[in-house]
Amino acid sequence: MQFTEFRAGDTGAWRIEQIKGVIGETLPNAERLEVLEGEGFSNTFQKGWRLKGFTSNTRYTSRREADSMAALQEGLGRPNATRAALIPIRKNEAWWALAQDERRAIFEEQSHHIDIGLKYLPAIARRLYHCRDLGEPFDFLTWFEYTPEDAAAFEVLVAQLRSIPEWRFVEREVDIRLSR
Amino acid sequence: MQFTEFRAGDTGAWRIEQIKGVIGETLPNAERLEVLEGEGFSNTFQKGWRLKGFTSNTRYTSRREADSMAALQEGLGRPNATRAALIPIRKNEAWWALAQDERRAIFEEQSHHIDIGLKYLPAIARRLYHCRDLGEPFDFLTWFEYTPEDAAAFEVLVAQLRSIPEWRFVEREVDIRLSR
Repeated sequence: MQFTEFRAGDTGAWRIEQIKGVIGETLPNAERLEVLEGEGFSNTFQKGWRLKGFTSNTRYTSRREADSMAALQEGLGRPNATRAALIPIRKNEAWWALAQDERRAIFEEQSHHIDIGLKYLPAIARRLYHCRDLGEPFDFLTWFEYTPEDAAAFEVLVAQLRSIPEWRFVEREVDIRLSR
Repeated sequence: MQFTEFRAGDTGAWRIEQIKGVIGETLPNAERLEVLEGEGFSNTFQKGWRLKGFTSNTRYTSRREADSMAALQEGLGRPNATRAALIPIRKNEAWWALAQDERRAIFEEQSHHIDIGLKYLPAIARRLYHCRDLGEPFDFLTWFEYTPEDAAAFEVLVAQLRSIPEWRFVEREVDIRLSR
């Protein structure tokens, strides 16, 4: 299948500006980040760290929300979007023990996760990768791209997300900022 | 991570009684089925076929439904449950393009998928494995175990499931019956 692998080390199109542990253990510093997409990757990679995930169907988004996002969002790779963030998170066991209706209620009705993200479209492009089911150290990797002019707006977005009820279930979060 | 792999070939604890293509392409016949759980499996396996998947959090089940199931269900491996079925299915692109609320409405409010299964607990034990995100030929593998006395009830269960609106989105289904 198609995985996306994020490799931090000496090479890659993105320069790592900062790696910060927000909740729990951080990740080691590195110079560059490479983003690879494909079927499988060699295990000979030694230096630095690597995280992988896959895109999948939406898990909480309603039709109305999906249509709003589709109408507004822009793709990754815009030439002027020279800033990026990679934010791996892991949620705790209490979250994963919740039923679907309970997770949805916390995610949107209480936390407005989707509505918050919608306010920053199309400026902040975003892609979610799942990795919990791969036995990775994180549950999700979210990749954001934006222009230098939208960097301040991005800070507001991440601060808002960290204040919502859903975030009380986050037990590990690392914030990696990049530029190219 | 922990995958479960189903290997059909010459060996394994389960004898394959029948393999039937219900919708779309079937799977090749084989004598025995081995069920392996673990981190990774050798690629030297040659004869027969193999399917793998992982258990995950529930995707549609409400708290009320989850509690009802937990109160009633029994585990796999009951000594007298000497009959089993492995039913791999793949849903079509129209299903996966639906939003979460649309999939839930078809799955339960229109199709009563969970409520149908509840009627057969604890007699028919069941475990769902996900595999779409692994790039496997199916999206889900469901494993059922029951006693010879409950075999007729199991036929009613699968017939009911094949008649619900959700099943109109199934584009491939194979029905594998086993005994030990």
